[in-house]
Amino acid sequence: MKIALAQLNYHIGNFSSNKDKIISAIKKSTKESVDLVVFAELAVSGYPPRDFLEFNDFILQCNKTVDEIAKYCTSTAAIVGLPTFNKNEKGKPLNNSAAFLYQGEVKKIINKTLLPNYDIFDEYRYFEPNNSFECINFKGRKIALSICEDLWNVQDNPLYTINPMDELAHHNPDLMINIAASPYNYHQTKVRKEVLKRNAKKYKLPLFYVNHVGAQTELLFDGGSLVLNSNSDIYDEMKYFEEDYRVYNIEDIQTKSVKHISPEYSEIESIHKALVMGVRNYFQKLGFTKAILGLSGGIDSAVTAAIAAEALGSDNVYNVLMPSRYSSSHSVDDSIELVNNYRMPHDIIEIEDAFNSFESSLKPYFKGLPFNIAEENLQARTRGVLLMALSNKFGYILLNTSNKSEAAVGYGTLYGDMNGGLSVLGDVYKTQVFELARFINKEKELIPENIITKPPSAELRPDQKDSDSLPDYDILDEVLYQYIEHRKGPKEIIAMGFDVKLVNRILKLVNTNEYKRYQTPPILRVSTKAFGMGRRMPIVAKYLS
Amino acid sequence: MKIALAQLNYHIGNFSSNKDKIISAIKKSTKESVDLVVFAELAVSGYPPRDFLEFNDFILQCNKTVDEIAKYCTSTAAIVGLPTFNKNEKGKPLNNSAAFLYQGEVKKIINKTLLPNYDIFDEYRYFEPNNSFECINFKGRKIALSICEDLWNVQDNPLYTINPMDELAHHNPDLMINIAASPYNYHQTKVRKEVLKRNAKKYKLPLFYVNHVGAQTELLFDGGSLVLNSNSDIYDEMKYFEEDYRVYNIEDIQTKSVKHISPEYSEIESIHKALVMGVRNYFQKLGFTKAILGLSGGIDSAVTAAIAAEALGSDNVYNVLMPSRYSSSHSVDDSIELVNNYRMPHDIIEIEDAFNSFESSLKPYFKGLPFNIAEENLQARTRGVLLMALSNKFGYILLNTSNKSEAAVGYGTLYGDMNGGLSVLGDVYKTQVFELARFINKEKELIPENIITKPPSAELRPDQKDSDSLPDYDILDEVLYQYIEHRKGPKEIIAMGFDVKLVNRILKLVNTNEYKRYQTPPILRVSTKAFGMGRRMPIVAKYLS
Repeated sequence: MKIALAQLNYHIGNFSSNKDKIISAIKKSTKESVDLVVFAELAVSGYPPRDFLEFNDFILQCNKTVDEIAKYCTSTAAIVGLPTFNKNEKGKPLNNSAAFLYQGEVKKIINKTLLPNYDIFDEYRYFEPNNSFECINFKGRKIALSICEDLWNVQDNPLYTINPMDELAHHNPDLMINIAASPYNYHQTKVRKEVLKRNAKKYKLPLFYVNHVGAQTELLFDGGSLVLNSNSDIYDEMKYFEEDYRVYNIEDIQTKSVKHISPEYSEIESIHKALVMGVRNYFQKLGFTKAILGLSGGIDSAVTAAIAAEALGSDNVYNVLMPSRYSSSHSVDDSIELVNNYRMPHDIIEIEDAFNSFESSLKPYFKGLPFNIAEENLQARTRGVLLMALSNKFGYILLNTSNKSEAAVGYGTLYGDMNGGLSVLGDVYKTQVFELARFINKEKELIPENIITKPPSAELRPDQKDSDSLPDYDILDEVLYQYIEHRKGPKEIIAMGFDVKLVNRILKLVNTNEYKRYQTPPILRVSTKAFGMGRRMPIVAKYLS
Repeated sequence: MKIALAQLNYHIGNFSSNKDKIISAIKKSTKESVDLVVFAELAVSGYPPRDFLEFNDFILQCNKTVDEIAKYCTSTAAIVGLPTFNKNEKGKPLNNSAAFLYQGEVKKIINKTLLPNYDIFDEYRYFEPNNSFECINFKGRKIALSICEDLWNVQDNPLYTINPMDELAHHNPDLMINIAASPYNYHQTKVRKEVLKRNAKKYKLPLFYVNHVGAQTELLFDGGSLVLNSNSDIYDEMKYFEEDYRVYNIEDIQTKSVKHISPEYSEIESIHKALVMGVRNYFQKLGFTKAILGLSGGIDSAVTAAIAAEALGSDNVYNVLMPSRYSSSHSVDDSIELVNNYRMPHDIIEIEDAFNSFESSLKPYFKGLPFNIAEENLQARTRGVLLMALSNKFGYILLNTSNKSEAAVGYGTLYGDMNGGLSVLGDVYKTQVFELARFINKEKELIPENIITKPPSAELRPDQKDSDSLPDYDILDEVLYQYIEHRKGPKEIIAMGFDVKLVNRILKLVNTNEYKRYQTPPILRVSTKAFGMGRRMPIVAKYLS
């Protein structure tokens, strides 16, 4: 039996494009006498469709699309993910389904049992869990078909009280197929392989696993679809961050030695690839080509520009330098060196005039109060206005350049440098931004060394340094990581050896700045806990603040 | 048996304040020889604690707090809601619990069975549902204790496959108690009474129902706790939008006639009360007293100012008038009349200088292109910068003045008039804003008539009217209501008699402006479907766009 895995980049709600991609892979499979071609979870709608699932019209379009796809499945069968209406009277209105298409029609619908509802997942919001289990009989083989999370309840403290594969195992399947939409984070590749291996080992069955690839706003799907044999060896690993399509002879998986393992990316290399894909897909899927950003001379905007240049092409990244009376001379020089290295377009627009106008307009109302955060923010907001004016005039998307450390402690100006259509580095801690810069420079100094080595500064008042207001990034990032990624409380973090006052100060900063993060752009997610849809905090709250 | 209901305004994560309120009600009950005093769902933590629930430290503090509260329950028992650790090995780590406190300790924990996970609810994200059922035996009576949603599965197409009260009914209880956190929307009072009546009728038991009151950022809890007798008559209805505490003799409920029914508010009156409470609590709980807003001369900012004046006191609402070359003369006059009617402070700051500075700074880069949306937004953003500068200088919170119709179709400037710490009218359609203005003026012309009757305009270019770019608000709002509140698709809306082109244009505007709404402030929720946490849409998507 020949099984093909199609690892494709879908677009949420774009039924015609998703359908065309799926049908094209089915045609290819048919030509190659493939018996069964497998697509990802919710391939028809894209993942995650979120509250579009509450529109009957949306579900009807999914159903219509899968019927059209089924017509192309004559000699070659296909498995395609889509939402379907729950046929039972009780329970939520939908199921997260896998349709088995063969002989021109939908032969069977298998529903997902375990519905992830943590972090960025909201599946229990829409779907009723499955509670009846059967295999698909196809050409003399019994297929245990499951959907993503269905294979993930193999931990020691299981999140769910049922294990669907245990149920399917009673039917003596010959192989497992799992269709998934498993988003990337820089630990996920390892964890995913571990989980799938545990399944192959536990059930002593070969496993075909198909993942999404491509970005859906903040969620980055890394692909890396896998084939495991019944000894739980990885037989093949598909491409990361790219579409891929491969055909397997099921007999080979057991008898032949391991075919191919993708090169293992370092953590920072995978983050880099994920971010490039995230920027590229955001623009492509929205139908935009050009980005604008403010280049400050600092490392965050430099790395953002470098990633954008790789994602969109240097010509398409318009850099605006907006020095003020507080900017150091090297800020402009360093930025110009950067844009020259990449051959990116740039302009220099002084903010002095607009800033002065604001100052004099406000003078009668500021009542002689001293320069403070108001004037600092005024500069950042003046820059924000200039960038948005250019964005509006020419149809650029503004890229936000804030990093995760800043976003965490609120070290940024709302409606100023926190502006943007997309945050590229908002899930990358400052210490990781340095690593990214080093990675980008690994072969050639593209980001000027001075940008990497000079002490970080917002340059909003004379001789300002980040270290005036914030702890060293090494320490700050470690504390933030424990609090944000590991949800450790103050006592637990202090017990790790951090200073009491420092920890309390940092956690208070994080919690009192929820209101700022509420209004930030979507952030490309690369960690296990990114700001945005995966971290839902009350604004008016008193905990640790 | 005497039962007291304590309808209190909690603060998320503010354990000391929540504890003090609860203990004070217990002391009062003890003094009045009450047998049992009942508090709301998650009273100890406030509702909804959201991802604070993922912090062990937060749950430990809840447990510690309830132990401290229990010490005060000696002769008087209490029922208090809090999150607790799930004691089973499998399943999610927490339960949403009701603790029965008596004789100085936690005597029993009852867990919630039905976990709402739609709209603004995310309970399945944190909690494992209960699946074992028992009553509380107290002073010779069996109490069927349930938590909020547990009583809500009485519809014809039930959302859940189990009905916890059916299970409890097997134990022959004498009365039902339900502790709730049921947020307001302008249909909710009616729906809630209906659901509770159905329960009293079905189980032929008296029902004591305690709700939260007060605002938690965007969620507005309206109180209105209820006591029903076993004939499903409402015996008593507690205050709306205010704290309340009442004692009932359980024998009276059956034998005496209906005690008191609160006055029924009209839809617009209840919206008004909800918004006033929302603004007031937002400021109180964040520890702020003063608001700033931009007064344009239009109806949205006028109604926002009026609501803020009622919530915070007129002295605490600072109105800034920022006319431009495109402002009509009556804009300023009307606004001054409004601030004089309310005796609110105001200033007039011309935006001409700052706008000119931006125009001349940008001139070389705009390359002679004609005036368009870029220059319109530039004016709105200049105003946004001025307001934020004053906010930063003096510690005002900026109130956002956008209405739901504008927010829906993207008729507003990101980082301009879409700025603010809180959106007061973002869940109020434009046609409802007019109703609110009429309601506010019901006894006296507080909002100048001219503000209500003149045609709406953004005044960002010569002789601009909203009707140049948007359909009439009567029609727009009806289409939006069908799409947003009822999730009707284009075909269904067109079938209701609306123009095909118009419907497609409106739905496309809604969907292509998700990116703007992603960055808007939290919106006080008054409808069944508000923008924000209850409506989760992908940004990069192609459906109806």
